[in-house]
Amino acid sequence: MKAVRYIETGRPPEIVDIPKPEPGPGQIRIRVAGAGVCHSDLHVLDEGIGVAGPFTLGHENTGWIDALGQGVEGWREGDPVAVYGPWGCGRCHTCQQSAENYCENHASIPTFGGGLGSDGGMAEYMIVPSPRLLVPLGKLDPVSAAPLSDAALTPYHAIKAALPLLTPEASVVVVGIGGLGHMAVQLLQALTPARLIAGDIDDSKLAHARELGVKHTVNTRDGKAAAEEIAAFTGARGATVALDFVGAQATMDLCKQVVGRASRLTVVGLGGGTLAYAANSPPYGCEVSIPYWGSRPELMEVIALAQEGRIRADVEVFPLEQAVDVYDRLRHGRIRGRAVLKP
Amino acid sequence: MKAVRYIETGRPPEIVDIPKPEPGPGQIRIRVAGAGVCHSDLHVLDEGIGVAGPFTLGHENTGWIDALGQGVEGWREGDPVAVYGPWGCGRCHTCQQSAENYCENHASIPTFGGGLGSDGGMAEYMIVPSPRLLVPLGKLDPVSAAPLSDAALTPYHAIKAALPLLTPEASVVVVGIGGLGHMAVQLLQALTPARLIAGDIDDSKLAHARELGVKHTVNTRDGKAAAEEIAAFTGARGATVALDFVGAQATMDLCKQVVGRASRLTVVGLGGGTLAYAANSPPYGCEVSIPYWGSRPELMEVIALAQEGRIRADVEVFPLEQAVDVYDRLRHGRIRGRAVLKP
Amino acid sequence: MKAVRYIETGRPPEIVDIPKPEPGPGQIRIRVAGAGVCHSDLHVLDEGIGVAGPFTLGHENTGWIDALGQGVEGWREGDPVAVYGPWGCGRCHTCQQSAENYCENHASIPTFGGGLGSDGGMAEYMIVPSPRLLVPLGKLDPVSAAPLSDAALTPYHAIKAALPLLTPEASVVVVGIGGLGHMAVQLLQALTPARLIAGDIDDSKLAHARELGVKHTVNTRDGKAAAEEIAAFTGARGATVALDFVGAQATMDLCKQVVGRASRLTVVGLGGGTLAYAANSPPYGCEVSIPYWGSRPELMEVIALAQEGRIRADVEVFPLEQAVDVYDRLRHGRIRGRAVLKP
Amino acid sequence: MKAVRYIETGRPPEIVDIPKPEPGPGQIRIRVAGAGVCHSDLHVLDEGIGVAGPFTLGHENTGWIDALGQGVEGWREGDPVAVYGPWGCGRCHTCQQSAENYCENHASIPTFGGGLGSDGGMAEYMIVPSPRLLVPLGKLDPVSAAPLSDAALTPYHAIKAALPLLTPEASVVVVGIGGLGHMAVQLLQALTPARLIAGDIDDSKLAHARELGVKHTVNTRDGKAAAEEIAAFTGARGATVALDFVGAQATMDLCKQVVGRASRLTVVGLGGGTLAYAANSPPYGCEVSIPYWGSRPELMEVIALAQEGRIRADVEVFPLEQAVDVYDRLRHGRIRGRAVLKP
Repeated sequence: MKAVRYIETGRPPEIVDIPKPEPGPGQIRIRVAGAGVCHSDLHVLDEGIGVAGPFTLGHENTGWIDALGQGVEGWREGDPVAVYGPWGCGRCHTCQQSAENYCENHASIPTFGGGLGSDGGMAEYMIVPSPRLLVPLGKLDPVSAAPLSDAALTPYHAIKAALPLLTPEASVVVVGIGGLGHMAVQLLQALTPARLIAGDIDDSKLAHARELGVKHTVNTRDGKAAAEEIAAFTGARGATVALDFVGAQATMDLCKQVVGRASRLTVVGLGGGTLAYAANSPPYGCEVSIPYWGSRPELMEVIALAQEGRIRADVEVFPLEQAVDVYDRLRHGRIRGRAVLKP
Repeated sequence: MKAVRYIETGRPPEIVDIPKPEPGPGQIRIRVAGAGVCHSDLHVLDEGIGVAGPFTLGHENTGWIDALGQGVEGWREGDPVAVYGPWGCGRCHTCQQSAENYCENHASIPTFGGGLGSDGGMAEYMIVPSPRLLVPLGKLDPVSAAPLSDAALTPYHAIKAALPLLTPEASVVVVGIGGLGHMAVQLLQALTPARLIAGDIDDSKLAHARELGVKHTVNTRDGKAAAEEIAAFTGARGATVALDFVGAQATMDLCKQVVGRASRLTVVGLGGGTLAYAANSPPYGCEVSIPYWGSRPELMEVIALAQEGRIRADVEVFPLEQAVDVYDRLRHGRIRGRAVLKP
Repeated sequence: MKAVRYIETGRPPEIVDIPKPEPGPGQIRIRVAGAGVCHSDLHVLDEGIGVAGPFTLGHENTGWIDALGQGVEGWREGDPVAVYGPWGCGRCHTCQQSAENYCENHASIPTFGGGLGSDGGMAEYMIVPSPRLLVPLGKLDPVSAAPLSDAALTPYHAIKAALPLLTPEASVVVVGIGGLGHMAVQLLQALTPARLIAGDIDDSKLAHARELGVKHTVNTRDGKAAAEEIAAFTGARGATVALDFVGAQATMDLCKQVVGRASRLTVVGLGGGTLAYAANSPPYGCEVSIPYWGSRPELMEVIALAQEGRIRADVEVFPLEQAVDVYDRLRHGRIRGRAVLKP
Repeated sequence: MKAVRYIETGRPPEIVDIPKPEPGPGQIRIRVAGAGVCHSDLHVLDEGIGVAGPFTLGHENTGWIDALGQGVEGWREGDPVAVYGPWGCGRCHTCQQSAENYCENHASIPTFGGGLGSDGGMAEYMIVPSPRLLVPLGKLDPVSAAPLSDAALTPYHAIKAALPLLTPEASVVVVGIGGLGHMAVQLLQALTPARLIAGDIDDSKLAHARELGVKHTVNTRDGKAAAEEIAAFTGARGATVALDFVGAQATMDLCKQVVGRASRLTVVGLGGGTLAYAANSPPYGCEVSIPYWGSRPELMEVIALAQEGRIRADVEVFPLEQAVDVYDRLRHGRIRGRAVLKP
């Protein structure tokens, strides 16, 4: 079968032929429906993640159960599923709460998940090492659901931790309306009554936000002007929550400037910035966090939201064979919403 | 091997010879160290739990890993473990958070766990259907640790839900200082700064509570006098939390009388009482709950407490062969702390 | 000035002339804009609340600041405000968190609030004993905002405590679509992604729910049929949250039947029922609560929701002089949404 | 009366004679029992806090009610009280929850509290602007209780936010065992079952920690060696919570190095450091916060802990006249626990 593979750091992905894999005891083989193309793959390809290749890329995957290894019970061939992406040890305190994204033993296990050390979903088939990593999709279209397991799960996890702060008089700022950000603004509207303002340096992304129901948008190219516009929106209290889906120095600095006391500033984008926290800057009581992906119950909740029609990933579908070109488009900001490869 | 078996409702347990079981793919065989003798087994024996017998009793179990089924990884033969007792479907939203005690599919699965529909730990060996149900014991003595998986986990779960209320000016009432209650008073002292008062109708149980560090005790045989003593202890606010480990009508009524507004009344004992909740009786804002067992991460936390020496189950160890007599002593209140059968 | 007064238990309200009151040091005089007519006033009139009369009725009030007593700072005459209704001691631990609805000293203070022991808002002017009991209304119309301080605040408080359970795969049942219930269904849609079903015995109330955006409604006159319809809606898990705004025996029994494990059943209506809680009935882990009113920060949040247009009290406005007739209509279920008296 | 006054930035405090103040309507006059001498006063004296002088210093104060202004009810002359230190607008959403330390209008009010813009407690008498700022002391000795309102409240607030993480298998690191840190280690032992390790560069401070019950201590002078010792203590998971009561660059860097994923790093000390947060450094999911003081209900809880004998401020009492010398000793690290001035 065809697979899009990471070979080694600094080298472009390659499309090669590899054998169709067989599930061992306790494992499941998935026939892949869709594999999302994520910005963090560019980090994997350019800088590596400390895991040796080659391996098949693709860490946000959906498909149909194709074959059950010995001893796997409670699942049926043909059922559509999402693959929970961060694979932990499965035994530690955090994994037991299905938050494998924060596995306590991550330093001593040889992979971060399928597409991140193990073979991922950019191929016709993939092996999932345990049924605990599957979530049923029900009636959702598996192809367009692929981004839910990362592009929706990651902002969901970030937002869920902020929910107690997102009361009706609170305000929330989202910066960066790309693959994750366009899910975040939908999630915030579905989950919270807080007043929402969305920022991006690209007016077409702001238009996208407005199409998704956001009433207040701000172009953040001029950081000073943007901070003033946001301050006018939030009032004396400042922003209660700021979510930065870019993570560059400029967006972090902007977020730091607009949050108030007893607030929360969450950076999700891996844009290479550093947030400097000194006394009262950001203001006292601000909780700063750079979270990672999400938990499996959170993925179940994301899928429930999609099933109810409350969120929808905006996807462009490409054949697997165009993977190299699609990564190139992503690198140059020429994807709206999320690209999905379909084998 | 010898096993203590439930045969059918209304019939005493029997000690019979059954074959040593073999673990299938994904399963684990445990060599049993200890099996706690729980009051709820009397309900199983006397009234049944809607599950057909015969099966081996024993739902609070510890032991050593004896054999790994195909595909089981990350565990080693010889390691001492506790067996997490409530076995759910493993796939639903609640099970994914390791709260199999509240499995959403409990009505459609044929067992509640080992000793509760499946073969339990009152035998030389038992089969655990998945490694997800094991928790490492580390250096704890496996025999005396057996009660942790129920007699400690169940009050831990009840207390954990009440923790946000158990602030330093709060007061908490524990009624019933038996197998679960003697763990509860230790847990409360380890986990919370709240002011604690313990009640029982048996002065020797109150003496036991005082040995365990409780400063204030009250004999609850005369409900009216007990309510007055407790009111004097709690002051105008009333009790913030009441935990009833008996669950008889008299103890429920007492708890209802002593809690204040915005409080919590948790019934853990299955003593056959009914709590009648009408407007302002118990006082407005009281949250009443009858929880069930606990989650697997909670069991990990309980075991951590025992490892640090913060809690200790007070056990009487008996050989497996004396099971029938031990159940009889339990029925007549002649066990201090918890009885454990040792194969 | 004219005032609608409670005289003594069992006697209808009277409209009488009383002197315009003067604010003492630390007090504020409000010129009343609207006073909501609440079902619980019927309890006050018929059965009393243990507080001696006569006093002016009206416990959900809005108006304009009319005069400031000595030492009151930070408020301006003419500003529109809501009056926070439950007046506590202001000093205890609960009052310090602005949850005066659960004042720890309620038994030793001589009033529950304006209209509930002290003179309330069914008059041209009322005295508020402290500025801590005021919440600014901003640009909201004060007359139609009157019900926010009870008919919206009370369900908001009940819902807020349930929020952690109201995740996207959860379901919530609201029973009773009257003054409080019609606010509850709006609040649930503004605050949570949970799947919502609304029940009432009156089809016109169900039509009202549908106008307010509720997709699933069920007539609850036949309790058995209603329970089946709700079970089909919630699936195997059962309802995660049930909110009973009637509180009669039939509605409590229905709610008890439809909730699942690890759920929450909140009774807000004072319909005289009693909820009997025994082991696993309602199912294990269900938290049952009868809360009372809400906290002042919650009132601020309710007002923020109204300011953003996310909730709106459906009101019928009557002149103060028609109070006796309005109470009569309320008693016979002939008010849609909420009646407001306007001096 | 004598008062210790801030005159202007960069000038030492002066002891001068000022008139005994009179309480206006709604105010209270306190006869001061004790005023804690806090490290942050050195910042006030050296660098200013953006508030014009002169004013009397002392922001952690206790005393007896001496005179009630007009309209003040519910308090009696002679009663011992603590003065809640951070004075906010009293009307915003945060103030309404008694978290005046995060007042939303702090930028537009002319003082941060008594001793921080308004006249504080380093005098025979002080004026408290509202009874809402008082907390009864009960039977506590008012002199030695003075530090509770800051040296105990500030770490309590920091710890309370971390409580959900401080489960039995968690570990917590406290750096800096001075005025606040020596309260923090007592609070952690009273409030949580987490495993505790305390660090300081001064062995006599570590000895103090051990006297207070801490089993594990580490000298942090050599940051690299300290990080290794702490890592050996916490195991693979890393520290769950780190509390830095110094806030210098070295202590922040140490804390950043020892926390694990999904952890919390709280900086309380104002030592001038800056914490740089980039992707996975500190590890993903770490929440970093620099909180400020605490809320009034938290002060009530701190006082309850002291009343139960669970915490005790270690104080050295000096006459008011020695203030200048005491500040000097504080500056040179020659105070054990907390210094208190007694008028």
